[in-house]
Amino acid sequence: MKIFSKTDHSSGMKKLAIGVDIGGTNTSFGAVDQSGKVYFTGSFPTTGHPSFEAYASTIARTVLETVRRIDDAEIAGIGIGAPNAVRETGRIEQAANLAWKGSLPIAELIRKYTGIDNVRLDNDAKAATVGEMLYGGGRGIDNFAVITLGTGIGSGFVVNGRLVTGHDGQAGELGHSTVVPGGRTCGCGRKGCLETYTSAVGIKRTAFEVLSDTLPAEAALSPLSAIAYNDMTSKMISDAARQGDPVALRIFEQTGEMLGRSLANLTTVLSPEVIFLFGGLARAGELILDPTRRSMERNMLENFKRDMPRLALSAIDGDNAAILGASALVWQAVG
Amino acid sequence: MKIFSKTDHSSGMKKLAIGVDIGGTNTSFGAVDQSGKVYFTGSFPTTGHPSFEAYASTIARTVLETVRRIDDAEIAGIGIGAPNAVRETGRIEQAANLAWKGSLPIAELIRKYTGIDNVRLDNDAKAATVGEMLYGGGRGIDNFAVITLGTGIGSGFVVNGRLVTGHDGQAGELGHSTVVPGGRTCGCGRKGCLETYTSAVGIKRTAFEVLSDTLPAEAALSPLSAIAYNDMTSKMISDAARQGDPVALRIFEQTGEMLGRSLANLTTVLSPEVIFLFGGLARAGELILDPTRRSMERNMLENFKRDMPRLALSAIDGDNAAILGASALVWQAVG
Repeated sequence: MKIFSKTDHSSGMKKLAIGVDIGGTNTSFGAVDQSGKVYFTGSFPTTGHPSFEAYASTIARTVLETVRRIDDAEIAGIGIGAPNAVRETGRIEQAANLAWKGSLPIAELIRKYTGIDNVRLDNDAKAATVGEMLYGGGRGIDNFAVITLGTGIGSGFVVNGRLVTGHDGQAGELGHSTVVPGGRTCGCGRKGCLETYTSAVGIKRTAFEVLSDTLPAEAALSPLSAIAYNDMTSKMISDAARQGDPVALRIFEQTGEMLGRSLANLTTVLSPEVIFLFGGLARAGELILDPTRRSMERNMLENFKRDMPRLALSAIDGDNAAILGASALVWQAVG
Repeated sequence: MKIFSKTDHSSGMKKLAIGVDIGGTNTSFGAVDQSGKVYFTGSFPTTGHPSFEAYASTIARTVLETVRRIDDAEIAGIGIGAPNAVRETGRIEQAANLAWKGSLPIAELIRKYTGIDNVRLDNDAKAATVGEMLYGGGRGIDNFAVITLGTGIGSGFVVNGRLVTGHDGQAGELGHSTVVPGGRTCGCGRKGCLETYTSAVGIKRTAFEVLSDTLPAEAALSPLSAIAYNDMTSKMISDAARQGDPVALRIFEQTGEMLGRSLANLTTVLSPEVIFLFGGLARAGELILDPTRRSMERNMLENFKRDMPRLALSAIDGDNAAILGASALVWQAVG
């Protein structure tokens, strides 16, 4: 286990929220104050525990042990971000990338093993959105969206200053809105979902589509033509684009076209002030922002052009983003 | 001018909101109490006034004269529903179907001519949504949508119990979300907008597409084959469908396919508990509800199928719907 500890003696009793991010490979955690200052972070493997109860007990024990090392800390609560987490029930439901199947009562177990009542759960994209709202670029903005471009696409929306949960806690699945009717096959069993085009995996699929559509002599000049499907990452595509590779630039152009279309549609519903991009593919910066902005403008209803939503990168520290988001769930609940 | 007056002596001082609906042809108005009971309604032509100021003064005078006839009435405010109305500025902007162009300061003029300060303005679809929230099927429901299927498509969304306005008051333009990339030409200058497929005019366009796609011998058997483009209405199509005309049923099937697709996408963003249909085409009842529901289910992400948004007709009295919606803007503001 890695624990990076930083204590702060400048103030008296520190109110801290514990953020726990449950990933398929690692579980990260950290303590964060109300301003978004991170006091420590740590992580341990999500796999290799004899049971889900044992895993939950490890989270609880590790968190409590670590907190004890901080002077004058008062724990306001524990926020947990996890894939397929449902805020209302405190459960993780059928998560594809965890070893445990079915319906997992994570919030209840963490309450039991820590003795801390204020345990909040939401899926990782909604946690990131609350993080953006409390610590990031969303501060003071009543209507905004966060789109996470990772392996899949997550999304979270803030309307009138509050997170959109929908009637069942399941709002925010923009990645599975249809952007091309009858388009690419999606892992969800449907076709043409935004996620199949503009996630970190989606852009790789676009790379192979663009290569297939390019004259072989030209395609062969691209560094991407030397990389097998299984080896290609979105970072390789952005590296090639940064070197001016025309194939890679075309891949970003097409990716931006799809994302911009979808964000123009989103704007007809919510008219957000800002749309924040987040996650692996967002690290490409202007390479993805620029074609997406141009596509948004092309596809945008005239009414919205005067005061178009601003497209920006998330203002949350990328390395600790998941922990920050999870911890923010606590402040949202007590604030 | 028609005035239908009903006075109620059963209670003491009645608190009433005046609802004014500005249409291209007629301006309707009425007084409504907080429960949605209508005390009177009247209407006069929107056209033929020497100036916009004169028109606004006519609204003010007519409303005040009528209110004076109700015993013990206290006016809580005036709510105005109009096309292209912007809540934040109190103005109607570039309304295509009004004689006056540019930016019309309707709220300010009505305040000036009536002496009543509490004047609220919003576009007709948002007014209908607030009406649904306060008087209709949306009572007690925190997350729902209203889609009006009229000449165009209007939409309004309620999230966490509050109307979605977006950062600039322009949220709720689902009619101009793209449902078929590169599809039918829309009046907004773009292509494939939902409005071109599933408004009362959109279904007429679908009628001609279906006729064009049907074997001529079969098409000739449909009563719709005897009607010219300029004469066809959505009511003729629903009348034919009610008689079992296979062409008309196919038209509704295609219309429901498009609307269901769009509502499945909307659900990924907002996950509403209920989606209410409203307006001319909604009068077709199950003819439009049934194929739309089936398409929603076909196009819906698996997660949402367990607790799919209910698709229902608006519970607002159709004849007074516009007045009810406009009046509701007042209660929303004072409530």
